[in-house]
Amino acid sequence: MTPDLRCGLGFDAHRFSADADRPLFLATLRWDGAGVEGDSDGDVAVHALIDALLAAAGLGDIGALFGVGAKSRGAGMRGGAMLADTVRHLQANGCFPRSASVALIGNRPKIGPRRDEAAAAMSAICGCPVALTATTTDGMGFTGRGEGVAAIATALVDVGDMA
Amino acid sequence: MTPDLRCGLGFDAHRFSADADRPLFLATLRWDGAGVEGDSDGDVAVHALIDALLAAAGLGDIGALFGVGAKSRGAGMRGGAMLADTVRHLQANGCFPRSASVALIGNRPKIGPRRDEAAAAMSAICGCPVALTATTTDGMGFTGRGEGVAAIATALVDVGDMA
Amino acid sequence: MTPDLRCGLGFDAHRFSADADRPLFLATLRWDGAGVEGDSDGDVAVHALIDALLAAAGLGDIGALFGVGAKSRGAGMRGGAMLADTVRHLQANGCFPRSASVALIGNRPKIGPRRDEAAAAMSAICGCPVALTATTTDGMGFTGRGEGVAAIATALVDVGDMA
Repeated sequence: MTPDLRCGLGFDAHRFSADADRPLFLATLRWDGAGVEGDSDGDVAVHALIDALLAAAGLGDIGALFGVGAKSRGAGMRGGAMLADTVRHLQANGCFPRSASVALIGNRPKIGPRRDEAAAAMSAICGCPVALTATTTDGMGFTGRGEGVAAIATALVDVGDMA
Repeated sequence: MTPDLRCGLGFDAHRFSADADRPLFLATLRWDGAGVEGDSDGDVAVHALIDALLAAAGLGDIGALFGVGAKSRGAGMRGGAMLADTVRHLQANGCFPRSASVALIGNRPKIGPRRDEAAAAMSAICGCPVALTATTTDGMGFTGRGEGVAAIATALVDVGDMA
Repeated sequence: MTPDLRCGLGFDAHRFSADADRPLFLATLRWDGAGVEGDSDGDVAVHALIDALLAAAGLGDIGALFGVGAKSRGAGMRGGAMLADTVRHLQANGCFPRSASVALIGNRPKIGPRRDEAAAAMSAICGCPVALTATTTDGMGFTGRGEGVAAIATALVDVGDMA
């Protein structure tokens, strides 16, 4: 069986919360500092990754799978659980993640010291290598002003059996 | 013959028009609400996709193929026609789209109810699966303020015969 | 040996300098007009590409490889030298770039007349095709206001021997 690789792209952005006690979740991990607004845990790295995986598999996007709003299935869900659900959904449709990469854009958190931990956590759930990079925007735009954090993700998914 | 897959990335953004009668075109379809400014129909989803396809094929970008400005070949063209022209240009150069994915960023239109229709329309023109996801930016940045709409696209193109 | 292709994504943004004498470097070339702030030459096209290559290879990101700040290894380095170092680092780890694509977002410089030259320069260093596209944001956001320039890059890297 020859692999039939398809590419997917995802993007997400969330606004930092004014509530300093709201925890910050990114790439399935909890980080220091205030979290973001949102009905789920607002893990933009995972949300962008989920959209990239679903797009590559031709299975819609995160809003279609988990719903939107305070009463949706995704409300209150942690990023890791949403990602695991997504991967099971792909596998049930004969689609297997082969590689993925997430670029985080924002002033915080500083990813470097925990990059390997974050990449390993996402990779374990996806069953394939998932990379994490991070950059700021030099004080420019909504990420540079510290209003929020954004992420872009790309994924390769093998849909070989479906061809 | 082994496929020689190359990746391409494209980005585009257009400003919403103050002219409420200007139609909105995205992903080859017409949507409710005012359209965007631009010499073509301003279909950012298709424009980003075209750049991703041309980049993967090593054939320049949309400005090089269709020109820029009110007197260009692309002026007045609908996204679907531009995309079809692009795919023919790739094929004439021995390049075949294998997979693509477009992420739309903006407050409107709501993609969900017509996602399948939009993805099917782009897929039919490209001759390969083209996915469409959409997200907002939580009120942040130019897309969050409703000034315009943006799109990022990625594509895999098989240039096998050229190797 | 079957290629084991992995995808990587990178993003970067730099603010244009108020110092009109600071040279502008993008995609390894020098361009007319004032450059950007930064400890290195601020070549956002190359920096995004480096992050995409490192991510695909599972080798961290540009900050981990070159350091951050005025005393880092990357300080004062030109984009071409950083890219060459990165490709050598990949190869030393059994990873080989197969394809890459960079989308530049900003009002200047105008890429068109020198696109082939820029793409050829990056391709020669990477040992694979590297495409370059460019677009504006219709006057919107930090790139549209001319505050800075941004780039998104994607890459495919063959890690076949590591599997």
